[in-house]
Amino acid sequence: MNPFDIRHHTDGPIGGYGEGRLIADIRQWLGETAPAAPEGPGDDCAVLESAPGKTLFTIDSVVYGRHFDKNVSAEQAGAKLLKRNVSDIAAMGGAPTCAVVAITCGKDLSRAWLEGFCRGMAAGAKAWGVRLVGGDISGASEGTFSASMALLGHAEKPLLRTGAAEGDFIFVTGELGGSLTGWHFDFVPRVREGAWLAAHARPSSMMDLTDGLAKDLPDLIPEGCDAFLDTAILPLRTPVTSLGQALCDGEDYELLFTLPKAHLHKLDDWNTAFPQTRLTRIGRMQTASDPQKTKRLRDKTTGQPLDVEGFSHF
Amino acid sequence: MNPFDIRHHTDGPIGGYGEGRLIADIRQWLGETAPAAPEGPGDDCAVLESAPGKTLFTIDSVVYGRHFDKNVSAEQAGAKLLKRNVSDIAAMGGAPTCAVVAITCGKDLSRAWLEGFCRGMAAGAKAWGVRLVGGDISGASEGTFSASMALLGHAEKPLLRTGAAEGDFIFVTGELGGSLTGWHFDFVPRVREGAWLAAHARPSSMMDLTDGLAKDLPDLIPEGCDAFLDTAILPLRTPVTSLGQALCDGEDYELLFTLPKAHLHKLDDWNTAFPQTRLTRIGRMQTASDPQKTKRLRDKTTGQPLDVEGFSHF
Repeated sequence: MNPFDIRHHTDGPIGGYGEGRLIADIRQWLGETAPAAPEGPGDDCAVLESAPGKTLFTIDSVVYGRHFDKNVSAEQAGAKLLKRNVSDIAAMGGAPTCAVVAITCGKDLSRAWLEGFCRGMAAGAKAWGVRLVGGDISGASEGTFSASMALLGHAEKPLLRTGAAEGDFIFVTGELGGSLTGWHFDFVPRVREGAWLAAHARPSSMMDLTDGLAKDLPDLIPEGCDAFLDTAILPLRTPVTSLGQALCDGEDYELLFTLPKAHLHKLDDWNTAFPQTRLTRIGRMQTASDPQKTKRLRDKTTGQPLDVEGFSHF
Repeated sequence: MNPFDIRHHTDGPIGGYGEGRLIADIRQWLGETAPAAPEGPGDDCAVLESAPGKTLFTIDSVVYGRHFDKNVSAEQAGAKLLKRNVSDIAAMGGAPTCAVVAITCGKDLSRAWLEGFCRGMAAGAKAWGVRLVGGDISGASEGTFSASMALLGHAEKPLLRTGAAEGDFIFVTGELGGSLTGWHFDFVPRVREGAWLAAHARPSSMMDLTDGLAKDLPDLIPEGCDAFLDTAILPLRTPVTSLGQALCDGEDYELLFTLPKAHLHKLDDWNTAFPQTRLTRIGRMQTASDPQKTKRLRDKTTGQPLDVEGFSHF
């Protein structure tokens, strides 16, 4: 839906409502996911109980025309903002807890569209146990909409991107590529899988795939190593037909992690725990073929570098 | 400075640099205020130690053309984003700790301007003890720039907006009105004053003034009451000339709080603690003149309502 198309709605653009009314409406649309102040919106800050363990903190945005367009519903756009952030918490093996949201938009934004966006965000928040505890709405140029969400999470022992060693095997959940056919809105953040891995397998490193395997995997490769991939068994999302798509399309929101050989048995119960979530051992970290140019992706069979690049925002 | 004017800079627009380079540059511009991962940027989330007491959580934005324009420096715009958020933590009597920032801009943004924005944000962060632990940069329409910051803080016993009672006196720090002449960039968040009040005076309610006294004060007025103001002694910022300006200009970033009569002596040491920060008792919460229409601002002498409205974002 075009966020600025008000032809089919009787409630018109948000510009006609006034800020106080708009904020009250948003509170109502968010429903039970937005607790009362001071735990939720309404005071200068939300007041949260401190928790034991480590606190996780991340921020991510969606921009109209960039991360979504008029072909998706407002609800899908709102849910995507929530899920992108939740996926970052999942990537540390953590559990999401509380979020704040800043919306920046023109006063010509459809009020009905904004309602859908908020309801989509709230539905995602409910599904993933997130409380929406604060926010801000600022005016910007007509025809523009963006929203940024900062999310807190919790983990006893977060799984970091650093920690993989030479010889570690590389795993990925789900399937890769072709997210633009729908997955980049329909994806399910791998929160349960991430928490299970943190508790049962303790990967040596982990991240979520957002920019594509080719761009993201180098962040996990240890010094002096390359990632040798079994390109023949990469799990391709239907209808992906090329290796390049699986490596570069981006927005997979799957977990990518490494595990030492001695710990492989810790994944034996995966299929019992997650019968619906595929897990594939896609390669291994090994000493780089060219010590002058390390941290490359290479084909396991031929040893040749996979010269492809992930999605770049600029 | 116009964020999209690259005529005087050899480094041109950010669009020519690539996302990886840009993020590395931003890390450098932020300097020591951005710790290394996992405590800072670079992993999927920042990993923070949990603290005792309560955690405060807030978000605020700056939009080019709305909260700042080409007449201010990039450094001032970046510092403003930081200080707006810090002021929200001060309003709870808390101490700011960690922030994440989402930037949304066109690829025609001047790289030199972005550097200035980041350096201004970092200077503010250093001044107020804030660590910049994560961020995101997203492409948007050319000619647009906005940035949202989510800030965490800490307080043993946060001061809320709710809690004032009939008979409580109303105080304000500093001076009111005329912020557009420079104060809305030069302001000093009242962190030290807020923390002192939380520790020594325990106001019955507190907030920071952002939309103007006329719009903000009703949030502190208890049920069934009006706020009776001594309009003759409202502290006006030079060169403010009218009561309306002091009530409605907004962006004062001063602390507004209430105190029961029995606790007035707790402010006796204010001038010793803060010789540079004026403190004015501007009025009192009293039973509303019209029980059908409460929570109004009224002139203490005439009893007449002060019919003015604060700044509205839509």
